[in-house]
Amino acid sequence: MKSIITISREFGSGGRTVGRLVAERLGYAFYDHELVNEVARRCGFSPRFIEENGEYANARSSLLFSLATAAQTPDMLSMYDRLYIEQMKFIEELAEKGNCVIVGRCADYILAGRDNTINVFVYAPREVRVNRIMARHNLSEAEALKAISTSDKERGNHYFRYTDQKWGKAQNYDVCINSGLMGIEKTAEMLADMAKIEVRA
Amino acid sequence: MKSIITISREFGSGGRTVGRLVAERLGYAFYDHELVNEVARRCGFSPRFIEENGEYANARSSLLFSLATAAQTPDMLSMYDRLYIEQMKFIEELAEKGNCVIVGRCADYILAGRDNTINVFVYAPREVRVNRIMARHNLSEAEALKAISTSDKERGNHYFRYTDQKWGKAQNYDVCINSGLMGIEKTAEMLADMAKIEVRA
Repeated sequence: MKSIITISREFGSGGRTVGRLVAERLGYAFYDHELVNEVARRCGFSPRFIEENGEYANARSSLLFSLATAAQTPDMLSMYDRLYIEQMKFIEELAEKGNCVIVGRCADYILAGRDNTINVFVYAPREVRVNRIMARHNLSEAEALKAISTSDKERGNHYFRYTDQKWGKAQNYDVCINSGLMGIEKTAEMLADMAKIEVRA
Repeated sequence: MKSIITISREFGSGGRTVGRLVAERLGYAFYDHELVNEVARRCGFSPRFIEENGEYANARSSLLFSLATAAQTPDMLSMYDRLYIEQMKFIEELAEKGNCVIVGRCADYILAGRDNTINVFVYAPREVRVNRIMARHNLSEAEALKAISTSDKERGNHYFRYTDQKWGKAQNYDVCINSGLMGIEKTAEMLADMAKIEVRA
């Protein structure tokens, strides 16, 4: 039985909903907006700032470079990096408690190497994402396509900045799945079943 | 019910065995060495040449460039490209018949966009691969590591040459799975279950 599931997801893939359904099936806590609110409380940023920046970096240098610089002058650490570090600490606390599903925020990287974790990446073909975004956010097709392109680029940049890994590379996860293959419900069911399997090494 | 499963896999991940077990569970034909032998019969190359080159390209230009050149002078098409084209034609024939599992050989790319196909990528953490390769091929740890590094590079080059896509990018497949998560048997069981699911769009 795995006690932590991290879900990375493409915008419009339904990955957040998959995560919520997996949590329901396993009786686990679900951290998405809850994580945002707690991090907001701790570091004094508004929940909106965190929603907008917690997975999207536009900084130019790597976190390591910023940390090396900030070691001399901590005030120089950018708001983005302070946000990342608060998120990271909170995710590590959640993992200690276990029995939870965490969406986004590089949780796969932060919790890498833990035996009790499954790292999942959810994506979908472009047309599935476009239809989903149009329906959920009341956008035109052109607007949905633009939102996809922007989100993919920004999430990729953010992930690379904080992990030095390529976002969407299969080997960074235990399971990657096209949610369009079986649909949201079946995908969640299968992932919950996988979490329940006892593996003998 | 999906009637074609393609399995791409890292060397040492057990992906070939996963493919064989999926075929057994579904009662499907399994194409790996069988594919090599048939392609050998058709194009006159030795099975050994095909084993050694069917998934490993060392050519410098893209297939499209070679085809454009060869359109004028067909004899200029390299043995590698002729092998790829024969494999491609045979894979398309297999897909028409359906009810089969095909391992490797860019079958995911060749059959992309078919509703009745699941494209799978199987990988595993480095230590799992090393142990598996040492046991199966009677190699030292250093030799196994070298084999992994060479195979990853060559398969990646071959895939890029013939598909213009990055090998191991999650979005090129429907499912990507770390075979170390549940083990070979359970992974095959889960994939066979996925193939059986009827999806209503």
